[in-house]
Amino acid sequence: MTERVVVVGADAAGMSAASQALRTAKRTGRSLDVVAVDRGHWTSYSACGIPYWVAGDVGGPHELVARTPEEHRANGIDVRLLTEATNLDLDAGWVEVADHAAGRRERLGFDQLVLATGAAPIRPDVPGADATGVFGVQTLDDGGTVIRYLARDVRRAVVVGAGYIGLEMAEALVRRGLDVTVVDRAAEPMTTLDPDLGRQVHDAMEGMGIEVVTDADVEKIETDGDGVVRAVVTDHGTFAADVVVLGTGVRPATELARAAGLPLGPTGGLRVDDGMRVADGDRVLDGVWAAGDCVETWDRVRRDWVHVPLGTHANKQGRVLGTNLGGGSERFPGIVGTALTKVCDLEVARTGLTEGEARTAGMDIVAVTTESTTRSGYFPGTQPITVKVVAGRPDGRLLGVQIVGRDGSAKRIDTCALALWNEMTAAELAMTDLAYAPPFSPVWDPVQIAARRAADRL
Amino acid sequence: MTERVVVVGADAAGMSAASQALRTAKRTGRSLDVVAVDRGHWTSYSACGIPYWVAGDVGGPHELVARTPEEHRANGIDVRLLTEATNLDLDAGWVEVADHAAGRRERLGFDQLVLATGAAPIRPDVPGADATGVFGVQTLDDGGTVIRYLARDVRRAVVVGAGYIGLEMAEALVRRGLDVTVVDRAAEPMTTLDPDLGRQVHDAMEGMGIEVVTDADVEKIETDGDGVVRAVVTDHGTFAADVVVLGTGVRPATELARAAGLPLGPTGGLRVDDGMRVADGDRVLDGVWAAGDCVETWDRVRRDWVHVPLGTHANKQGRVLGTNLGGGSERFPGIVGTALTKVCDLEVARTGLTEGEARTAGMDIVAVTTESTTRSGYFPGTQPITVKVVAGRPDGRLLGVQIVGRDGSAKRIDTCALALWNEMTAAELAMTDLAYAPPFSPVWDPVQIAARRAADRL
Repeated sequence: MTERVVVVGADAAGMSAASQALRTAKRTGRSLDVVAVDRGHWTSYSACGIPYWVAGDVGGPHELVARTPEEHRANGIDVRLLTEATNLDLDAGWVEVADHAAGRRERLGFDQLVLATGAAPIRPDVPGADATGVFGVQTLDDGGTVIRYLARDVRRAVVVGAGYIGLEMAEALVRRGLDVTVVDRAAEPMTTLDPDLGRQVHDAMEGMGIEVVTDADVEKIETDGDGVVRAVVTDHGTFAADVVVLGTGVRPATELARAAGLPLGPTGGLRVDDGMRVADGDRVLDGVWAAGDCVETWDRVRRDWVHVPLGTHANKQGRVLGTNLGGGSERFPGIVGTALTKVCDLEVARTGLTEGEARTAGMDIVAVTTESTTRSGYFPGTQPITVKVVAGRPDGRLLGVQIVGRDGSAKRIDTCALALWNEMTAAELAMTDLAYAPPFSPVWDPVQIAARRAADRL
Repeated sequence: MTERVVVVGADAAGMSAASQALRTAKRTGRSLDVVAVDRGHWTSYSACGIPYWVAGDVGGPHELVARTPEEHRANGIDVRLLTEATNLDLDAGWVEVADHAAGRRERLGFDQLVLATGAAPIRPDVPGADATGVFGVQTLDDGGTVIRYLARDVRRAVVVGAGYIGLEMAEALVRRGLDVTVVDRAAEPMTTLDPDLGRQVHDAMEGMGIEVVTDADVEKIETDGDGVVRAVVTDHGTFAADVVVLGTGVRPATELARAAGLPLGPTGGLRVDDGMRVADGDRVLDGVWAAGDCVETWDRVRRDWVHVPLGTHANKQGRVLGTNLGGGSERFPGIVGTALTKVCDLEVARTGLTEGEARTAGMDIVAVTTESTTRSGYFPGTQPITVKVVAGRPDGRLLGVQIVGRDGSAKRIDTCALALWNEMTAAELAMTDLAYAPPFSPVWDPVQIAARRAADRL
């Protein structure tokens, strides 16, 4: 018997799931008929690459596409673009879709449903937030829209929100020659870091000519008579703007799921088990799957469900989903909160908890910040690196690491992520066998120097 | 009561031990009187930096010294240079030392003895191996001797042995303008890698203008009438040489320990427990300690004792030794066989076992080699990276990883080292939360791509 699979959302999670399901089904002898719908123009793309497209590092949207609709179709997936899922009946087993190109609606019956509907930018709840010239940047289509708008006579940009996407877009806009102001309500940019490290990000942004306005709440977005953005008004001043980019976070795009009565967590994300089956507590919904930016994910350090919309999780979850849907067996083991970015010439990374997050959670911790170098101190091209380690008392278990530094710094966070993953103590990490050679590291790696100091302090 | 501590060898292990012992003793309330002797001119230096000194990247030997004799003396350590330990009586509790500057001998009584005598280059057992112009490069004094010799009319160099130090010295000599030939008895250079990856090193060396002669056994070193080197004769040809550098490995420098009847393992290294006490099986010798290149170290992957003379282990072992000697408690947890280097513009790293090593040990394994990129494929400056993963059947436990690639490749070995450290499987590593952003990695990190393929093959 052939099972009908409908995948809603054709980006990383959905298409990884579809591809892996077919691959697994071939091995297990199942027969699957897979339809994937997406309201946009693209499949399997790197949304993380949009700022580099805006900056001109990447030539066009096609370069950001890992696998085209044609390639997916050649693999046997019926990909339908500009096709939006508008209604879902779980009992009857159909999704209603609107084909915007053809201007018609139809019902797609399914035996297995994959929800990979992603996330949507949060718009600040202020007047003017929907004005012309105010953009969230989440999909490749969003990227194209912004780039077309920038071809106008656009000279002053305001970025609202100084998180990953906000800072990456701010840098991209500066590199396009715009005057850029970033406003954020926190004391320092990049609140995924503690403020002492956020300060370094602040300085790097100013060093690149970005105006940084902190502790500022946006009150409204001013428009001209045509409803086109003119300025961003905050409680710390008004900033003229020809274009506004929102970096104020995203929320799970789960309207369809919510309307169908599927279980959502406090973050608004779909609840899933570790096989990526939609699940209400221990009650697993048969034949309903979800992955990517629309789901909640288990955080192994927090020991709680979180919403962390990152491409790396979407790809892995999609693969796990596809394996299981195809009749194999694989589990998604959760995350530890790893993320990194480049802000100007500063590399910025974190994993686990910040000092602030741990203290807010009432944990008894030590936090140690150390300055070191990326290579042996005497080696040409050695660069400064700051590592902050958070460890719990009294056992010394690592709870989080933050890294800010120049070239060669940030990918060291992976070492820390694996230490957290394996529930190591700071003292244990300090004694592990990390690689040393003068062009790559001091004899004690910077993360080990920091871990050792934390262990000594415990 | 003040305890007298004699440290033999004033480089990384010995001086880390001495410093940490005093630091710990201050905390535990012990009283230590520490004398450190070394036959050379230097303390606490980076021998790994010698090739960069030869190449001119580093101005002089002082830049390679992490802590000078004066700094150690200011910390209360009686450092005596040009002072060689010549005899040891454990029962009587003294070391006889020859002060080469003053031309006198004396006996230093001890309550606690620290052996940190390091390693010595292995000279090939062929005629002419001791000729003028043939150098091992192990100590900072060796480095100075080579550099003074290179100031002569020296144009053609032969490096015997294509391991880490051999290749680093070959590159340094090329950069000084010499014609360089590297001869090695193996099929490819860098036998710490499997030959398929060694081939990339071979190509990089030739790309830099180094003549590479493999499968070649050295038969003799020819000299002129004054006993000065003239050529290296191998079974694959004779290579003219004004200078010869030996990269044929080192052996533990344990003559003093051997003469005193201390326990040595099959590698010739001192046997120690995980507190860095010299130990004959379970019998720990009271008050006799050792660390660094003169000891055997527990390999957590091989589950066997090995001799791995690296500065990173020496520093850590010295610290552990010092903590315990000073009345604290710390253990050295062993190694997993991590090492890396830069060969021309190629980064080269390994941890655990190679495919060859695992097969020689009779293990049932899969070995998978994957090509990937250091950054997202579309990101400017992305570089090729080759990752080879070795995993055991049937459990899939990771046994080793090798990495060869361009800028940004090799330090990824740390992630793999921690995976080995924690006895993870290839499938587990593939699903961990490693950092992704386009300037730093594809969405699946190259080590995860390789681990996943290995897991799929199992």
